[in-house]
Amino acid sequence: MNNTLSIIPLGGVEEIGQNMTVMEYGDDMIVIDAGLMFPEEDMPGIDFVIPDFTYILENRDKVRGIFLTHGHEDHTGALPFLLKELNVPVYGTPLTLGLVREKLREHKLEHIELIPVKPRGIINAGVFSVEFIRVTHSIVDGVGFGITTPAGLIVHTGDFKLDPTPVDGQLMDFLRFAEYGERGTTLLMSDSTNAEKGGFTFSEKEVRRAFEDIFSDARGRIIVATFASNIHRIQQVIDVAAMFNRKVILSGKSMISNAQIALDLGYLRIPQNIWLKLEDLKNLRDDEVVMITTGSQGEPMSVLSRIATDEHKSIKIKEGDIVILSAKVIPGNEHSIGRIINHLFRRGANVIYEKVSEIHVSGHASKEELKLMLNLVKPRYFMPIHGEHRHKVYHARLAEKTGIPKANIFLLDNGDVLEITEEAVQKAGKVTSGRIYVDGKGVGDVEDMVLRDRRRLAHDGIVLIIIGIEKLTGNIVSGPDIVSRGFVFEDASQDVINDVKELVYNSVKELDSEIIADKSLIQAKIRSVLKKYLRNTMDRKPMIMPIIFEV
Amino acid sequence: MNNTLSIIPLGGVEEIGQNMTVMEYGDDMIVIDAGLMFPEEDMPGIDFVIPDFTYILENRDKVRGIFLTHGHEDHTGALPFLLKELNVPVYGTPLTLGLVREKLREHKLEHIELIPVKPRGIINAGVFSVEFIRVTHSIVDGVGFGITTPAGLIVHTGDFKLDPTPVDGQLMDFLRFAEYGERGTTLLMSDSTNAEKGGFTFSEKEVRRAFEDIFSDARGRIIVATFASNIHRIQQVIDVAAMFNRKVILSGKSMISNAQIALDLGYLRIPQNIWLKLEDLKNLRDDEVVMITTGSQGEPMSVLSRIATDEHKSIKIKEGDIVILSAKVIPGNEHSIGRIINHLFRRGANVIYEKVSEIHVSGHASKEELKLMLNLVKPRYFMPIHGEHRHKVYHARLAEKTGIPKANIFLLDNGDVLEITEEAVQKAGKVTSGRIYVDGKGVGDVEDMVLRDRRRLAHDGIVLIIIGIEKLTGNIVSGPDIVSRGFVFEDASQDVINDVKELVYNSVKELDSEIIADKSLIQAKIRSVLKKYLRNTMDRKPMIMPIIFEV
Repeated sequence: MNNTLSIIPLGGVEEIGQNMTVMEYGDDMIVIDAGLMFPEEDMPGIDFVIPDFTYILENRDKVRGIFLTHGHEDHTGALPFLLKELNVPVYGTPLTLGLVREKLREHKLEHIELIPVKPRGIINAGVFSVEFIRVTHSIVDGVGFGITTPAGLIVHTGDFKLDPTPVDGQLMDFLRFAEYGERGTTLLMSDSTNAEKGGFTFSEKEVRRAFEDIFSDARGRIIVATFASNIHRIQQVIDVAAMFNRKVILSGKSMISNAQIALDLGYLRIPQNIWLKLEDLKNLRDDEVVMITTGSQGEPMSVLSRIATDEHKSIKIKEGDIVILSAKVIPGNEHSIGRIINHLFRRGANVIYEKVSEIHVSGHASKEELKLMLNLVKPRYFMPIHGEHRHKVYHARLAEKTGIPKANIFLLDNGDVLEITEEAVQKAGKVTSGRIYVDGKGVGDVEDMVLRDRRRLAHDGIVLIIIGIEKLTGNIVSGPDIVSRGFVFEDASQDVINDVKELVYNSVKELDSEIIADKSLIQAKIRSVLKKYLRNTMDRKPMIMPIIFEV
Repeated sequence: MNNTLSIIPLGGVEEIGQNMTVMEYGDDMIVIDAGLMFPEEDMPGIDFVIPDFTYILENRDKVRGIFLTHGHEDHTGALPFLLKELNVPVYGTPLTLGLVREKLREHKLEHIELIPVKPRGIINAGVFSVEFIRVTHSIVDGVGFGITTPAGLIVHTGDFKLDPTPVDGQLMDFLRFAEYGERGTTLLMSDSTNAEKGGFTFSEKEVRRAFEDIFSDARGRIIVATFASNIHRIQQVIDVAAMFNRKVILSGKSMISNAQIALDLGYLRIPQNIWLKLEDLKNLRDDEVVMITTGSQGEPMSVLSRIATDEHKSIKIKEGDIVILSAKVIPGNEHSIGRIINHLFRRGANVIYEKVSEIHVSGHASKEELKLMLNLVKPRYFMPIHGEHRHKVYHARLAEKTGIPKANIFLLDNGDVLEITEEAVQKAGKVTSGRIYVDGKGVGDVEDMVLRDRRRLAHDGIVLIIIGIEKLTGNIVSGPDIVSRGFVFEDASQDVINDVKELVYNSVKELDSEIIADKSLIQAKIRSVLKKYLRNTMDRKPMIMPIIFEV
């Protein structure tokens, strides 16, 4: 193992989100990104998911640093949880660290060393030498990494697209990627999010045209909802607002905080007297107002949601208002977003969203861009990252098309180890990996069993049978009483409930004394009798909980 | 009210699905469609939703018949539930009734009179004269209605698109729609499903080209998943299979039953010896096989899902297999479908789906087609139907563009009454309406409260506190015991649980004798103490159920 480089994705290669990769050589280890994933529909009550980073903690003495590609949650959201267990320096570009600093403060992790690195900066971390290479993406100040290791050059793209006309004028660093190609790169790890999409992803600037069209026609107030991290988008709204002599009001805690960070660091340019406060709204004419807010995913407690349902203290929607949802619809959120759109229309607003206008573009490279990256870096081996299995498959096909032999393309799962020596590259074993559920104030305390129970409760509810039994005689002294939640008994006729009571009463009375002495046997009996009854009569399977009270 | 025509949508104007409209004049009433809606994400455990048809039952003596536009579930799925309460004739085209007959048989409703009507057929039902007008849609044998009433002509499009090259060669009946325009139509009710989409919807025939491309390259087996009702799509797969000398195996109960009905009625043409049985699979070479199956939405028990997870008894996916998901992704199903795609890719299949190929087209008219329908029928008044509020808004805008004054366009909610006399058209009042949840064997027994409970249980689970109290003294004689499901206590340390026990014990002990005498007051106390504790220490809000046992 001594001259072996191990590359281990701990997250982000079986899903969109929770991106995290470990690189290990001898006694040195670096971590690239530490992201979260938002929960899927079958994870009720879960706030988000982070990768299991046990393997990093098991090797805590080796860790030379964490390198961040950019400031999105799916690349930085697990950071506070990792840094609670591990005090190592974190490297990132200034805006990325600006956003992270805020997050670490909330988690009382101000002691962590944050080391800003500009694109083309190089950090030596153990045997690794990590060069920051500028990419374009839907957040400013994103980078990929060119990593020199004793086993060869590795290029990691981070999230990227090839925006030919970026809002801040900062192009992707084609030269550096091409130089890594010229120097002979062993492995490319590249963003697969949009590997299913043909052609090129549109430039962020294309959104501006749509904004200009809308603004030029608007006579009322304009409300734009987008992600708080999309500084480019916020910049464009501000620019177009200025063009049409409108003032900008930012709303939502994360929106204001991110904008302030970006402004302080010079990533956001706001003309004088344009940024006003919510209190100033009353002094403005309708055609002088643009409000930028969060809530583009229909989140129930967001500003936009409150506006849509007339629960916002200072904004009531009226005829002439324009609401622009300038963000993608994350799968699973269609109905929540649809409901907000319906509410806004009902109240007289004109609502403009992705389906009906070009007010959003993706931040990820499509097929042609992905091939270009492969052609720039010309790697000997290729590992698609940032995607579900299908995205990796599509990306692998593109790589084959650019001439990389199938045998040199590796589709890893989370925890799989790719071993690289000067002689060979191969999959070799697996380390601890998985998903940790974060919910409320708890991390990892929601296990699969709890989730399974939640799904079951959600599907059919719960029925409690409460019964008092005299220990000595086995006589039923009270009950059975029946209480249910989320089950149709809540509205059922008394007849049905009486039937069930009688059924339970009779089944317990029939039991012989040996069984009566064992509470768990009585419970099992009640459960099985009732399960059968409910299945046959109602075709339903609620959770059944017999509660036996021995007197 | 005597010379007044009332048009009352009971479903389908606040959602995509559960389409149902009542037309009433004097002592006569007809019903157009009786559909179901598939549940949204916040309706756990619900199988489907149907409109509240109380108003129809209240007027049961007036009902002259139910008229069906086509055989899709969102237009016929509530029929069995309505017909259980009401024995009236059902009118539809032959295929529509073929599909309905099967459904009614399952519900033991064979006694209902089903009257087949061909396009251009006219049925007199009380004062109403209903003409069937052919439309094109994603199911064959669809119609709209031209309805002559004493208050004027009404045109109802049903679901439609303007397919210029329908698979069965049966064009939409432009002439009839234009004739209603010429005769002077009072009100047009038209399908709003795709009113947000610009341009024209592609012809169903376009899908054939994609199939031909895929089939011509394929060396292994081909599996096509689609909706069992999409006879056109099935026809095209069969045609292309024949072209490439492949045999067709249908799989899935509804797929086989629908195909048989369509075949018997002459709506499906299957060349001799093409349709084989699953048992014949073993005698065929891989490149001789096409299987058509259900499961395009990732339904967990479907054939496709079982194939994808290696649980199908006779089909194991292998390298070279091609799986085509030839159906739209219904919002909310993205993750289930994505998982199936990933499973299939992992097992070596090539998977082709809407995102990466043109293997599906919509069955609903886009903006240009909707305007054409408005121009053909030239109605004085317009009511967009089949859509959420936003779809109706977009459709209304198109109507305005074609010259219908805004005041003549009516956006109704479910239950709203539109009154039409020779003098005026206006909204007037509301009848009973709403959504009935159908779940397991129960209809309407899941009320909103039950659903609310399920959502809450799904989010944070349930905690039971079981405590025995001596009635006379108020002493705690047993417990408190704590049982939880779907809550993190299931994995919590004993320390936490002991803390909670102690907290409950102390709060009950402190109570004075007056409260102890009242079970509900003890419950309230336990609930409030525990709620506060869990919120403060864990930021969680499970359902808390104290169970007091008095001895």
